[in-house]
Amino acid sequence: MEKKIITVSRQFGSGGRSIAKAAAEKLGIAYYDKDIVKQVALETGFDTEYIEAHGEHAPSTSRYAYAFSHNIHHAGLHGAMTGVSPAEFLWLMQREVILRLADKEPCVIVGRCADYILRDREDCLNVFIHASKEYRADRIVRLYGESEKAPKKRLDEKDKKRKVNYRHFTDREWGDAVNYHVSLDSGVIGEEACVDIITRLYRGE
Amino acid sequence: MEKKIITVSRQFGSGGRSIAKAAAEKLGIAYYDKDIVKQVALETGFDTEYIEAHGEHAPSTSRYAYAFSHNIHHAGLHGAMTGVSPAEFLWLMQREVILRLADKEPCVIVGRCADYILRDREDCLNVFIHASKEYRADRIVRLYGESEKAPKKRLDEKDKKRKVNYRHFTDREWGDAVNYHVSLDSGVIGEEACVDIITRLYRGE
Repeated sequence: MEKKIITVSRQFGSGGRSIAKAAAEKLGIAYYDKDIVKQVALETGFDTEYIEAHGEHAPSTSRYAYAFSHNIHHAGLHGAMTGVSPAEFLWLMQREVILRLADKEPCVIVGRCADYILRDREDCLNVFIHASKEYRADRIVRLYGESEKAPKKRLDEKDKKRKVNYRHFTDREWGDAVNYHVSLDSGVIGEEACVDIITRLYRGE
Repeated sequence: MEKKIITVSRQFGSGGRSIAKAAAEKLGIAYYDKDIVKQVALETGFDTEYIEAHGEHAPSTSRYAYAFSHNIHHAGLHGAMTGVSPAEFLWLMQREVILRLADKEPCVIVGRCADYILRDREDCLNVFIHASKEYRADRIVRLYGESEKAPKKRLDEKDKKRKVNYRHFTDREWGDAVNYHVSLDSGVIGEEACVDIITRLYRGE
């Protein structure tokens, strides 16, 4: 079952991004995460910070309204994009970039509903990484430090946003095992073993 | 992450049972599936065929009513079990057997919400096996032959029943990746590779 692309979806704090990065390094293939966002920004004139903040979240109309009219103007797309909502525009741009990256070279793509966007390709290994709330809460405090919000509340909010976004654009349930070829609990299995399983599957070992 | 018990939940036709059996053989540990049902039957006086048909399905009151009153009589539990519905009685009996088996020896347990029943143990590896509808439809026709019902309809009905049953007794979503330590698409990954991943994780390799 040799593959060309790995898509990684993950619960916030599960270490899915570190696992994705380590797998890309071990396999010697490209890794895309915020790079995608930057590329979208460069191609469309969208503001990078804005996309980083909203790229994985479903529409929040009032905030989009301003940014959209502002950015669409800079992107010179005002005429052509009439009738497309800002969230849909962002989605279409990201979709385009992901399709192009997957065509270009073997790579790991994190988030951005890449599993859904690339669903017609047979050379994708779709991975979901999750972990218990306790494990993730400990991990985010260790990595990102304390914040005013309790860690479990931060997890709930982030996960909720990813779930709503995924459902909105894909009409599927985020975290439903059937959407992924392999789903792993990084807290129980360990990050290294996750990387090992993913790289073996990718190589068809 | 060495473990003592493996629980396997699976979509109908995914090969989850074959994978579970092969993993148990490779590890040289016990395998429980219909054996559990038989043991329940022996201990409670329930009719084996009846439990095999209903063990994984949520209450269907009219059919339970007769069997329950009939079997509860044979089990000599009439007085003690007043106020417990037949489905709950069946659940409690299976739960008891599963807890006992897990205490007794290293083993693989298929179905029967064992992942949920054993959730307080830290030595369980919880596995979910699924596959595309196409793969499963081909597989069930190959293994069990044609029937009057279209294979995809058979899949839908079986999966629906397992889902309803799981939700009823566990208040969780069957097939939700977070309920399992590892979920695998047997159609894409292949049965042998699934066995390999499970046995390695069990051994902590």
